[in-house]
Amino acid sequence: MGEFELIRNYFAAAPCAQTGEGVALGIGDDCALLTLPPGEQLAVSTDTLVAGVHFPEVCDPFLLGQRALAVSASDLAAMGAAPSAFTLALTLPSVDAGWLQEFARGLNVMAQTCSLRLVGGDTTRGPLSLTLTVFGHVPAGQALTRSAAQVGDLLCVGGDLGEGAGALALVLNQRTAPAAISETLLARYWSPQPQLALGQALRGKATAALDISDGLLADCGHIALASGVRLRIERERLPLSAALLGLLEKDAAQRAALSGGDDYVLAFTLPPEFLSGLLDAGWPIRVIGAVEAGQGVVLTDADGQDITPLTRGYQHFRETR
Amino acid sequence: MGEFELIRNYFAAAPCAQTGEGVALGIGDDCALLTLPPGEQLAVSTDTLVAGVHFPEVCDPFLLGQRALAVSASDLAAMGAAPSAFTLALTLPSVDAGWLQEFARGLNVMAQTCSLRLVGGDTTRGPLSLTLTVFGHVPAGQALTRSAAQVGDLLCVGGDLGEGAGALALVLNQRTAPAAISETLLARYWSPQPQLALGQALRGKATAALDISDGLLADCGHIALASGVRLRIERERLPLSAALLGLLEKDAAQRAALSGGDDYVLAFTLPPEFLSGLLDAGWPIRVIGAVEAGQGVVLTDADGQDITPLTRGYQHFRETR
Repeated sequence: MGEFELIRNYFAAAPCAQTGEGVALGIGDDCALLTLPPGEQLAVSTDTLVAGVHFPEVCDPFLLGQRALAVSASDLAAMGAAPSAFTLALTLPSVDAGWLQEFARGLNVMAQTCSLRLVGGDTTRGPLSLTLTVFGHVPAGQALTRSAAQVGDLLCVGGDLGEGAGALALVLNQRTAPAAISETLLARYWSPQPQLALGQALRGKATAALDISDGLLADCGHIALASGVRLRIERERLPLSAALLGLLEKDAAQRAALSGGDDYVLAFTLPPEFLSGLLDAGWPIRVIGAVEAGQGVVLTDADGQDITPLTRGYQHFRETR
Repeated sequence: MGEFELIRNYFAAAPCAQTGEGVALGIGDDCALLTLPPGEQLAVSTDTLVAGVHFPEVCDPFLLGQRALAVSASDLAAMGAAPSAFTLALTLPSVDAGWLQEFARGLNVMAQTCSLRLVGGDTTRGPLSLTLTVFGHVPAGQALTRSAAQVGDLLCVGGDLGEGAGALALVLNQRTAPAAISETLLARYWSPQPQLALGQALRGKATAALDISDGLLADCGHIALASGVRLRIERERLPLSAALLGLLEKDAAQRAALSGGDDYVLAFTLPPEFLSGLLDAGWPIRVIGAVEAGQGVVLTDADGQDITPLTRGYQHFRETR
């Protein structure tokens, strides 16, 4: 048995690789077999993370395992899908038992957090990279797409923005911060929490949704384009955490929130009548703007003046994603 | 728009990326949405191909696109699944429009051959590699697994063996052959034809099945282990093509058939009562042995003598798979 076959057996024995609801056949055959509840559709998303591009060449494998799965699971949250399973294609330059054990442990922790079962994949030799494909299910017709935002909807997000981008300088060891700040921000970077429950709670309410990965401005641009509307963002309403404001001046924190990416919180458009019910239920929803007639994204200051930056999107470690 | 975003849009516009039966939502949102016929299960398989490991660093991108999808689709054939969709995670060192166009053309041709629709994926910068995840569907309980071979079953294959391995020396330019031979073998290597229809025809008949990727001996070992039986292979029954026998001496051709891998024809165990009906229907099935009590794989000569080689499996370009 070759060392790569040993790795496959190792993952097959992982806690998150046990079969269960929705998984009729797991790792070990030519295909896995998944079942769907009657009347539901399968949601599928694939993401690749390459060493040196999407994460530092040298990083903690436990944190990498956690983060890789969280980033993928966030796409299920953005569709309002209930999580079910994932496959892992892992390319490694060599076999390092300690590295693998820690990576698998991180993967397991996030898999259990997200209720995702490992059902298959491939392990190959080559430059370090990961491709994860995640599966979820959603009642037919209830998935949250990007294309049905309506004029008059509120523009909302599911939590604080900018922490992922703020953490990046810490991740890359380009700067330091007091432990109270760095611990919070690094946790947000390495262990983002996919908003799977919020996504499902927004079914039948939100008219469009996605998870913020490229940066708020760029991602709102995706909704605007797909829905044929304009999204207005009010800068003073951007939710900024104490940790981020401890690291960055307010201006820089706002820029991180607008363009940084890596937040993996949901952004969505919501008819106003649904807001109070969701807030009463305790969902951490913040209104940051509104859907208007037009196209593109406009940023306004407290006086309603257009302050949309000329350059948008994301300019950082993940720029080639 | 960055160049990698342009690539994503390019694939989204490919002929094989159009939505249709089984695909409720294709490329462009956080997830694709697939539907399943009532009472069916989803079959899923993921394969990674790394440049310099699974295919030569320098190769024809059209052929690479064809082969990558064919290799993955073969796993659906091995489960008896009807093909539906696939995702492509493509990691590229740089953007070369000509390369991409040819790669996408090869992918399209095979996608249309296999009735597979491109529903999503990711495009990233990094060392060249591809991860494909394929989806099919199969009536619940009818998938062809590896674990139910029965003593008394026939051991069968779906076509000639050894051509993929025989072609490898030509692929790597380690030797040459007359055009009549090299054309046949190179076509087999670069454009294997997944036996999707045969796999579906074997539902309810074959007791175990897989596609031969690691080599006949190694792959039969997988069935023997999963089913708790012994598989006997009769060397003189190995189907060898005229092209392979034109390239290699009979001994070497038999070794290629036994250990070479890369054939992507189905190997399966079949209760004898089903054989004549399948042959009458025109399926290219060859009986190469039988299922016996015991364990492992045994190779016999024309006199029934055990000639099982001590070293099995695959020792070639794909050895780190």
